[in-house]
Amino acid sequence: MTGEPLILVTNDDGVHAPGLRCLAEAMRPIGRPVIVAPERDSSAVSHALTMDRPLRVKRLAEDIYSIDGTPTDCVTIGISKILAVRPCLVASGINPGANLGDDVSYSGTVSAAVEATMLGIPALAVSLVASESYDYTVAAEYARLVAGFILERGLPRDTLLNVNVPARPLTEIPGLCFTRQGRRVYEGAIKETADPWGRRHYWIGGGTPCWDSGGDTDAHAVLSGYVSVTPLHLDLTNHEALALLRREWPLPPAGYPASGG
Amino acid sequence: MTGEPLILVTNDDGVHAPGLRCLAEAMRPIGRPVIVAPERDSSAVSHALTMDRPLRVKRLAEDIYSIDGTPTDCVTIGISKILAVRPCLVASGINPGANLGDDVSYSGTVSAAVEATMLGIPALAVSLVASESYDYTVAAEYARLVAGFILERGLPRDTLLNVNVPARPLTEIPGLCFTRQGRRVYEGAIKETADPWGRRHYWIGGGTPCWDSGGDTDAHAVLSGYVSVTPLHLDLTNHEALALLRREWPLPPAGYPASGG
Repeated sequence: MTGEPLILVTNDDGVHAPGLRCLAEAMRPIGRPVIVAPERDSSAVSHALTMDRPLRVKRLAEDIYSIDGTPTDCVTIGISKILAVRPCLVASGINPGANLGDDVSYSGTVSAAVEATMLGIPALAVSLVASESYDYTVAAEYARLVAGFILERGLPRDTLLNVNVPARPLTEIPGLCFTRQGRRVYEGAIKETADPWGRRHYWIGGGTPCWDSGGDTDAHAVLSGYVSVTPLHLDLTNHEALALLRREWPLPPAGYPASGG
Repeated sequence: MTGEPLILVTNDDGVHAPGLRCLAEAMRPIGRPVIVAPERDSSAVSHALTMDRPLRVKRLAEDIYSIDGTPTDCVTIGISKILAVRPCLVASGINPGANLGDDVSYSGTVSAAVEATMLGIPALAVSLVASESYDYTVAAEYARLVAGFILERGLPRDTLLNVNVPARPLTEIPGLCFTRQGRRVYEGAIKETADPWGRRHYWIGGGTPCWDSGGDTDAHAVLSGYVSVTPLHLDLTNHEALALLRREWPLPPAGYPASGG
């Protein structure tokens, strides 16, 4: 055991994904990366937690473990049961594909970082905004840069960083922007298909997402060639709406709906 | 086809769950409930979307459909492909068990309402805070009350309501509170077990969650006997942290990490 800070590295594409290995290597100059990742691809599982069956941990090599569960399972079991000491950082990725705007809510990559944040450990999620060939070199450089900032300066409470890196050579990236989460405009991509017996099925996916045009959003930054860094938090409360409801919605009389319904 | 407003009713416990049927019945005085729910129990799937296989819709009875997928699948396919007209409300639940504080992030019940909100349709998620016997009568009354408010007054943009109802007789519920999402304090419940060959496995679950003690939180309201109604939104950005990062974190020079890394 060394004195280096432990960095838990995970993802949602599975322990054999090249983006994961790149991310772990990128962490090496600033700490000791330990991989705890799903045995299989768990893309789009969101913040799913496996509670209906026991989970098996496999040690594949020194500092590389897999779990037959979700990214969230990996973070919670990795921290509680696998790592000898508490990690100082959780890094999730590098995801082959964007995690921008509303899509973060579906993302296993981001959810692993959310779980770490719930457990009080600073975390970042890193995605490469590409759709065909994936060269993780540039994204890995930026992952190390942001991870180094976090180790040095810490993060505000209950907050994680969602990093998206455009698929461009380093020299064509004008820099890094701190952004807000954009809105995805719904594109309704559901393909109708038939099974061998002619019964209709629906296949969700495809389509080209559209984004709101706000200049300070994650999507806008990435489309302009920048690396976006979006601070996300755990509190989903719409505080403005809360004030409005308290002010404007009538509270039912005590005893309602017994008397009124 | 009647002129009544369509209300899409879904859940994460599956189409045969009694809480779902109670919720649909509760909607009947204010609209025409159409059930589109997962074929099987999908608890704790969070906002998972099924994209790796086609999904099959079954019509079980008039206005009752099942899909072999997640709650999110049900909402998106229900709205795009099953309902003849756009629903005016999506109601998700009634979940047997709380969806309070950070746990909303794991919840399939809440995620169905999140998906509806992304599609621009007002939504509520309803949970009964009980752990043994489940009598949905009171929760159903409150679900109708809140749904009626939504139909009458609308909801702020990108906002859904998360409703938690304590397991008490109506006369022992002092009323309804508008609340913020509380924090769950981590309790680290992972049970170690062994398979028939003696290999160690981990089972996530159990434990008693602890909550922060903030007086205006969802958990505090429910523990005090009130129905909590928490407005949640889709924007996970921590805007305060964003301002801080922009103010205090040094931006790398253009060309970094090429030059510096």
